[in-house]
Amino acid sequence: MDQPPPPIKTKFGSRLRRLRKERGFSQEGFAEECGLDRTYVGGIERGERNVGIENIERLAFALGIEVKVLFEFGDDD
Amino acid sequence: MDQPPPPIKTKFGSRLRRLRKERGFSQEGFAEECGLDRTYVGGIERGERNVGIENIERLAFALGIEVKVLFEFGDDD
Repeated sequence: MDQPPPPIKTKFGSRLRRLRKERGFSQEGFAEECGLDRTYVGGIERGERNVGIENIERLAFALGIEVKVLFEFGDDD
Repeated sequence: MDQPPPPIKTKFGSRLRRLRKERGFSQEGFAEECGLDRTYVGGIERGERNVGIENIERLAFALGIEVKVLFEFGDDD
């Protein structure tokens, strides 16, 4: 349609939430695994944070994936 | 060897520099294409900046690639 594409923060947040849930992490348990604050992780998942590359790496490490996988946005994300 | 892996900022900077040069951009011309300061882009390439996801998207857009390609770190990066 004619809608602009969603911002990368939104796509990244959706992708992160999906991968976290697939691995059976609660948001709180996942944040702890990352060494990040739960409200910060929640903000990332809601597309509210301009997350930096160092924290992106932490998220990927806690998920047990390569960073690039976090950026594999499908049409359904 | 026994060396720790390089920080993601270093790997990302090397990858960015390689992709920029492959496309024939000078650092200055590339920064202009991104709408970013040349010294900032230089800092990213030197692995000194904890670049945020919004600027990561700008870099990828200026290179004409998907964001995930910036994170395809080979063994030679």
